Amino acid sequence: MKTIKVGLIGFGTIGSGVIKVLAERRSWLKEKSGLDIELALVCDKDLKARRPVKVGKGLLTKDVGKILYNPEINIVVELIGGVHPAKDIILEAIRQGKGVVTANKALLAEAGQEIFEIAAKCGVAVGFEASVGGGIPIIRALKDGFVANRLDAIYGIINGTTNFILTKMEDEGLDFKDALRIAQAKGYAEANPALDISGRDSAHKLAILAYLGFGAAAKPDAVYAEGIKDIDRADIQYAGELGYAVKLLAIAKRSGDRLEMRVHPTLLKKDHLIANVKGVYNAIVVKGDLAGEQLFYGEGAGRYPTASAVISDIVDIAKGVAGPVRLGQGRLIKGIADMDKIRSRHYIRLSCADKPGVLKLIAGVLARHRISIASVTQKEKLHGRVVPIVMMTHEALESAVSGAIKEVARLSALKGKVVRIRIED
Amino acid sequence: MKTIKVGLIGFGTIGSGVIKVLAERRSWLKEKSGLDIELALVCDKDLKARRPVKVGKGLLTKDVGKILYNPEINIVVELIGGVHPAKDIILEAIRQGKGVVTANKALLAEAGQEIFEIAAKCGVAVGFEASVGGGIPIIRALKDGFVANRLDAIYGIINGTTNFILTKMEDEGLDFKDALRIAQAKGYAEANPALDISGRDSAHKLAILAYLGFGAAAKPDAVYAEGIKDIDRADIQYAGELGYAVKLLAIAKRSGDRLEMRVHPTLLKKDHLIANVKGVYNAIVVKGDLAGEQLFYGEGAGRYPTASAVISDIVDIAKGVAGPVRLGQGRLIKGIADMDKIRSRHYIRLSCADKPGVLKLIAGVLARHRISIASVTQKEKLHGRVVPIVMMTHEALESAVSGAIKEVARLSALKGKVVRIRIED
Repeated sequence: MKTIKVGLIGFGTIGSGVIKVLAERRSWLKEKSGLDIELALVCDKDLKARRPVKVGKGLLTKDVGKILYNPEINIVVELIGGVHPAKDIILEAIRQGKGVVTANKALLAEAGQEIFEIAAKCGVAVGFEASVGGGIPIIRALKDGFVANRLDAIYGIINGTTNFILTKMEDEGLDFKDALRIAQAKGYAEANPALDISGRDSAHKLAILAYLGFGAAAKPDAVYAEGIKDIDRADIQYAGELGYAVKLLAIAKRSGDRLEMRVHPTLLKKDHLIANVKGVYNAIVVKGDLAGEQLFYGEGAGRYPTASAVISDIVDIAKGVAGPVRLGQGRLIKGIADMDKIRSRHYIRLSCADKPGVLKLIAGVLARHRISIASVTQKEKLHGRVVPIVMMTHEALESAVSGAIKEVARLSALKGKVVRIRIED
Repeated sequence: MKTIKVGLIGFGTIGSGVIKVLAERRSWLKEKSGLDIELALVCDKDLKARRPVKVGKGLLTKDVGKILYNPEINIVVELIGGVHPAKDIILEAIRQGKGVVTANKALLAEAGQEIFEIAAKCGVAVGFEASVGGGIPIIRALKDGFVANRLDAIYGIINGTTNFILTKMEDEGLDFKDALRIAQAKGYAEANPALDISGRDSAHKLAILAYLGFGAAAKPDAVYAEGIKDIDRADIQYAGELGYAVKLLAIAKRSGDRLEMRVHPTLLKKDHLIANVKGVYNAIVVKGDLAGEQLFYGEGAGRYPTASAVISDIVDIAKGVAGPVRLGQGRLIKGIADMDKIRSRHYIRLSCADKPGVLKLIAGVLARHRISIASVTQKEKLHGRVVPIVMMTHEALESAVSGAIKEVARLSALKGKVVRIRIED
């Protein structure tokens, strides 16, 4: 039986999971793969930290070169995250002819195309199933399962932290800040939660999915990202009364020869497949012209789900069945759609003074911007004389809604900021 | 660029889809796979039928040998269905060193293990993504994505016809017979719908999933299968009032060293992930010890979803990345669990005479069989003096429930048959 030697860089949460499973399931993986997959070396800059799994001293090093330039090592697993020095490490591993497995969404969003092209030239494979959706085999599905399909859309909930927070707000009526604090206490949110709650993490993952699904090599900064920190529990309540849930959606959608790429809080009808995705779970919908609409759901992060994905990549590369990343749809997409030109329905919440004629003024502004109103609800007064008004619009141009909101916000009857949440039907 | 020649056997609904897509997307698939996939020959016993796609006369044959013994053909696609002559055709193709792609669930359920073993010996791959769940990449997920996982359960809705019928009954209050008639008119159900509505089709697919997921080589006849023809719209209504939907579930669940394998109508809480799967859609849940609970959802049948899966297999085999089917969990499972020994909660509907003391008699029988009752609801009278009583039990042994129902049915106060539906929580 052939032995495949693995060098692992980054002995953190996921690294510990991968090391534990590789050790405990070695004979299991032999049966499943026909190969003996051996953990040969583990590299981390800190060898003294306490970890939930023991590794023999001889297997530990601080010197990444001991992995990169060890001719016996076949596969390098990069789990340190971030762009630097992960990018240099991965590129050097590729140049040394080693297969690479990574969970590094920030790096792949930033430099995926460059990495995949160099890997293809060097004839080695890069596995990145763990970079999006934890243990959900969404990368495999897009690369292989949908190979014959022209995709129309990929969208979903791809950040567990924000979904946990929104779930807490919805189910328990909490404020954003309190829900965030619970997420932090549970280890679902970082001490500095900016990457998650700003939608940037979802944008990274969306860039990877869109690259695979549409051949669209968008830098993550080109993805419109709006986070959840301005979502008020009142909005979740009002949306609920109208039959909608509020979710942070990442959306890549073909619109002619352009690709809409956007991350923002979204109202979804409660009977929509992914409106009931709760807690840290992820759910991704892929719409292909042959296969139709498919949904993939599972834990989007965590030590063992992610380790499960990392090991599935190790096994595929070990078996030599992980080919280069090939894109077939690049020519269909000429660029990223201008955010101002997308069209969607909107939920708009206004805080108004309780005076006659206010609604007429607001309606007048919307009409001038050619925004047609589907429903208006005036809610119970909140603070003193402030009356919340919730409007649902028909489909309207993004720039028109932005313009109208700017104008409405200047009305003297308006108290507090105007909340705007896009609706997907 | 290497050319891969495909011979297709069975020019029916799915065959037409595969032929059309292979022709129209040849250059697309070149980009995606780096290979030129050419449809070399199509075999069918009827060459005169009208079909939605044209094939040049030179590409058509009635002689299957022209495909099997053509040394230029690399991959044989079998789409005729049924065990004979499909089995002999597939085995001969394998012996001739050709890769095989099939959507034949009946054959794989019956003889999958034999076919996979011979294929492994001959060093050729067998692709069967299309055999379960239409275009949903569930086979890939189980073979590759979950490779490191010990599975706890695979369950779901894997027959679109019955789910369509149950959905019509639930949403429109139709009788089974009327809903079936609509399914037939829409082409979702065959003129003879027995295979679908008896649960046997689901049992075939479950046998395939359980083989991959648990290494359990169960003949489809060893899978307990109970269909939907005895489901009354009253049961769907009563279940709904209790917060449940009725779905035909296929369940493979590890119970110690035994595997429960069963197909039957099942009550699922309405907020369960798959309780809202409507129409001809399929949804499969896989529970792994590392990856956690994952859900795969999509169109479970149809020309193009199935063609999408067939072509994904053709591409994988063409690229040489489709390895043999390897099982790692066979040793964990010592056999199929005895149906009498499974434990579950039950919904039981009794039609009783409207006389005092009946409930006491029934409760006495259940108590003697050690079945504990969670709730009892007496419904409005249905026909004349018949009163429906709906009981929800706590978890109870299958054989105890069977025994109790047999005894209750003999009570003189009982009118009409006792309906029993298992509950999964």
